[in-house]
Amino acid sequence: MKKHNFSAGPSILPREVLQGSADAILNFDGMGLSLRKISHRSKNFEAVMDEARQLVKELLSLGDDYEALFLQGGATLGFTTVALNYMKQGGHAAYLNTGVWATGAIKDARLWGDVSVIADSSDKNHSYIPKNYEIPQGADYLHFTSNNTIFGTQFHTFPQTTLPLVCDMSSDIFSRPFDATRFDCIYAGAQKNMGPAGAVLYVVKRDSLGRTGRKLPAYLDLQAHIEKDSMFNTPPVFSVYASMLTLRWIKANGGLEGMGRSNDAKQKCFYGELDRNPLFYGHSVPEDRSWMNATFRLHNEQLAADFDALWKAAGISGLSGHRSVGGYRASMYNALPLESVQVLTEVMQELERTKG
Amino acid sequence: MKKHNFSAGPSILPREVLQGSADAILNFDGMGLSLRKISHRSKNFEAVMDEARQLVKELLSLGDDYEALFLQGGATLGFTTVALNYMKQGGHAAYLNTGVWATGAIKDARLWGDVSVIADSSDKNHSYIPKNYEIPQGADYLHFTSNNTIFGTQFHTFPQTTLPLVCDMSSDIFSRPFDATRFDCIYAGAQKNMGPAGAVLYVVKRDSLGRTGRKLPAYLDLQAHIEKDSMFNTPPVFSVYASMLTLRWIKANGGLEGMGRSNDAKQKCFYGELDRNPLFYGHSVPEDRSWMNATFRLHNEQLAADFDALWKAAGISGLSGHRSVGGYRASMYNALPLESVQVLTEVMQELERTKG
Repeated sequence: MKKHNFSAGPSILPREVLQGSADAILNFDGMGLSLRKISHRSKNFEAVMDEARQLVKELLSLGDDYEALFLQGGATLGFTTVALNYMKQGGHAAYLNTGVWATGAIKDARLWGDVSVIADSSDKNHSYIPKNYEIPQGADYLHFTSNNTIFGTQFHTFPQTTLPLVCDMSSDIFSRPFDATRFDCIYAGAQKNMGPAGAVLYVVKRDSLGRTGRKLPAYLDLQAHIEKDSMFNTPPVFSVYASMLTLRWIKANGGLEGMGRSNDAKQKCFYGELDRNPLFYGHSVPEDRSWMNATFRLHNEQLAADFDALWKAAGISGLSGHRSVGGYRASMYNALPLESVQVLTEVMQELERTKG
Repeated sequence: MKKHNFSAGPSILPREVLQGSADAILNFDGMGLSLRKISHRSKNFEAVMDEARQLVKELLSLGDDYEALFLQGGATLGFTTVALNYMKQGGHAAYLNTGVWATGAIKDARLWGDVSVIADSSDKNHSYIPKNYEIPQGADYLHFTSNNTIFGTQFHTFPQTTLPLVCDMSSDIFSRPFDATRFDCIYAGAQKNMGPAGAVLYVVKRDSLGRTGRKLPAYLDLQAHIEKDSMFNTPPVFSVYASMLTLRWIKANGGLEGMGRSNDAKQKCFYGELDRNPLFYGHSVPEDRSWMNATFRLHNEQLAADFDALWKAAGISGLSGHRSVGGYRASMYNALPLESVQVLTEVMQELERTKG
């Protein structure tokens, strides 16, 4: 039976990316050596890293004033990395708190300087994106989390400010067109829309670095990684290779415009059913609903066993909600086909017909 | 033709580990889902992480007073992590400088406190392991690098001290029996003897943590990772899985005793020929020669083209030396068969016969 994978991550990847990376483990580039055994200093792997970095810039329509890096430690290490690279000694930074990951970013940044949380949606269990807040003059940067995987909210317009923007886009990068030139730094764990867990992408405006007056350890210094073409130390070769295959797949499927069209169709399909079906309601306010992670519940929790049996029987996996929200979460990353969303909405209709 | 892979890393892995990890990419544990698509919070992946951590402790004969963690960022991020977790606020640490990676560890540690380099082999291009040095009383720990991949030296006896020992074992962990209970912290990038690039192992004595008075960002706090069973954030699932397969392979092949016997046979084979063959000489002093990375040169550099043609024709790859040493480097990690070393020594003999 066909599987419909709504897992929040590590999540679904295109079939050709999986097959390509499995093949490379046994015989990379026809060399007779596994991708996992060749040196990361080989010409063959350098070509992989170069192509991955170039594809990132091409998909985001960025020029030579930006660099793309594939590093390790996930967005979690990114909380520290961006604070150390962008917050001046004795400076301050502004943060928006829209969920669990934003809270983590704030907590870690506070170890390195003065952090103002200028808006916070925790009063309503992060079910909305704050809209009216004052942005302090003179902050070193404004940090936000573009999509909140756990609560199912997403910024559909970015903050209006002249401050440098730093953004954790782990769960919605490459999912829709946007103006990347508005950002000094975007960082994103690979395991949602890009590749397997184990790599984190940084997209960095070159001239935004080197302004803090801090001396940084090598691994946390974005400039050091740029100078070594993202090969300062041994890169996670397998994750970079699989990410490169996924970036090729995105490009072949219409780039960010193509992803945006497909993701729009999926979210319309799902939220249309959610709004129509009297058995269910959403966690987040309609205007801030995430296209990537839809959080929803049953009005009558006693129907949960019936609903769970139905979706499991339909080949759906990964639909249980995060413990902070409860209920259900349907993650609809780039590689999830519209067909899977249709199967889910049919199951919701079936529940209504039989138990409504 | 059979390939003989002497690459310094990412390096050779056992065939069954490669096949097992390629299979898991397409269908993990018979779930019909790829290892790369299942959630790291699934019971199936938790079992992988648990087994990997347990195998580390079993192979190193460690009890419940130790924890094993699989994190990201390589040993390079480890330079910062160990300094932050073991150097007290206002404290000091002692380091041995035996090569490029030790130098990196020293540089990063200096950002966080007072570091004494108590011995340094850079006077002779790191061709030996310092023996007679004074260890300062009251330092928070003594740090050393057990094997120097680039220069081809290795500690065959560990420093005698009552100070806590912290060691970067990236290139020789699991290669021979040793008393792991002498260490407060061992860290090791996976990509030599353990698995693919993208994971780094920490072996930590539980009661050695929490003594520095520092507040640490989440990703750099070893205690935070222990409390979450090495799943504080999304782990590099593929690298952990492949490492687990390699650890199983080590156990099935006699554990550290078995690896030590096999590596001893390989080093005797190689260095026996090096000492016998009048065309070659070694970089490092005989008593400190590395069993993992043999560095050597031709007396007559004009024979280089002939030698290179011979070893390439024999199916050997990865033999070129690092630019800091020049000449050749034969890396003989656990998974390299004795047969490959025999092929190399036959090529050295062939050069002597034809050009000697």
